Amino acid sequence: MKLHNYFRSSASYRVRIAMQAKGLAYDYLPVHLVKAEHREPAFASHVGDALVPALETDDGLWLNQSLAVIEWLDEAYPQTPSMLPGDALARARIRALALQVACEIHPINNLRVLAYLTGELGHSDAEKTQWYQHWCRTGLEAFERQLVLLAAERQAQGLAPSRFCWGDSLTLADCALVPQIFNAQRFKVDLDGLPLTMAAYEAAFATDAVQKAQPTACPDAQP
Amino acid sequence: MKLHNYFRSSASYRVRIAMQAKGLAYDYLPVHLVKAEHREPAFASHVGDALVPALETDDGLWLNQSLAVIEWLDEAYPQTPSMLPGDALARARIRALALQVACEIHPINNLRVLAYLTGELGHSDAEKTQWYQHWCRTGLEAFERQLVLLAAERQAQGLAPSRFCWGDSLTLADCALVPQIFNAQRFKVDLDGLPLTMAAYEAAFATDAVQKAQPTACPDAQP
Repeated sequence: MKLHNYFRSSASYRVRIAMQAKGLAYDYLPVHLVKAEHREPAFASHVGDALVPALETDDGLWLNQSLAVIEWLDEAYPQTPSMLPGDALARARIRALALQVACEIHPINNLRVLAYLTGELGHSDAEKTQWYQHWCRTGLEAFERQLVLLAAERQAQGLAPSRFCWGDSLTLADCALVPQIFNAQRFKVDLDGLPLTMAAYEAAFATDAVQKAQPTACPDAQP
Repeated sequence: MKLHNYFRSSASYRVRIAMQAKGLAYDYLPVHLVKAEHREPAFASHVGDALVPALETDDGLWLNQSLAVIEWLDEAYPQTPSMLPGDALARARIRALALQVACEIHPINNLRVLAYLTGELGHSDAEKTQWYQHWCRTGLEAFERQLVLLAAERQAQGLAPSRFCWGDSLTLADCALVPQIFNAQRFKVDLDGLPLTMAAYEAAFATDAVQKAQPTACPDAQP
């Protein structure tokens, strides 16, 4: 398979984590967002949203939207570790955590929205950073509250405390959280007072899968 | 089951469509967003993000994040029409379309982001509307391009043209698209030049499920 991605893209990072965790090999094809390579026909003619990542399958199909790609990987390669383990309730919990990042934090803060704030709307870099920090912190506080609720639910069900976002293995939720924390650190978001979230992040970051998937490990990485 | 929701919330509307399409009964429990009822403990103590919708199951569990709720409904009630029919590829296509709305359009334009633009950032109502229209139109154009790509893919595979977003029944993709178009119409977004998208919308809007789920059919509907 070929993964069209960019080292610093959160959504790309999600898919890299999943593929590393599942032990699936891929060719790394960089798409340089700052040089707008994603808008060139070689890429954009294959994916309607012209956003990274896109996974080109061995059959030559281009799959897009990172969470949909990870769900597909789980369905197409069921013999590898699942990113959505457990019963329907566990899967609902994992998906909701992933969506809490993918729908409530990341979209408001991605490159094109930040560029619109400083471009079309004429805001300063400081105002842009404040915007980022506001939505990221607000979203991570919600994520933390959800982890608190889930910890109580697990306890009531007699389940062991989670080591990662949910349970004792990397899931779709960690695929979403880890890149968001990476980005939060870049933008100097206050990460104090988020003990369950940061414990899950630290546990995930220590895994081989995340170490191999992280931006600094990418062929197109830049300082 | 009890659906905690708000008539005008897009994410609530998504779940209503799925439940109507699957023929699942629910008690409608209104949470008035403009009165900030979602931040009161009766609601917010059950869901980390304090966002509607939340589905309270017959077991007293509260499920959140609309797309995760719909996936759960499909897994918990497999004997009803599936919102994710087909093989792994079909499901990847459907999920990616839903996420194209849920991650690329809706979050940038929801109530709290618009309120931040006119509040903290001091923009005018006209600038707020321009923001909405920009991101909604940009996202729907991407959605249209994806439908064009998928139409060609279906043709190459010998599949009939889609009547809805994907195939001949309502799916998760329609659950996401229909509320977005409803919202786009409220904000007077230009919907010209989106033939496949609008045909899918019209087909979905004509179904009994969407007619029963639409905002004007809700007990808490206001003009």
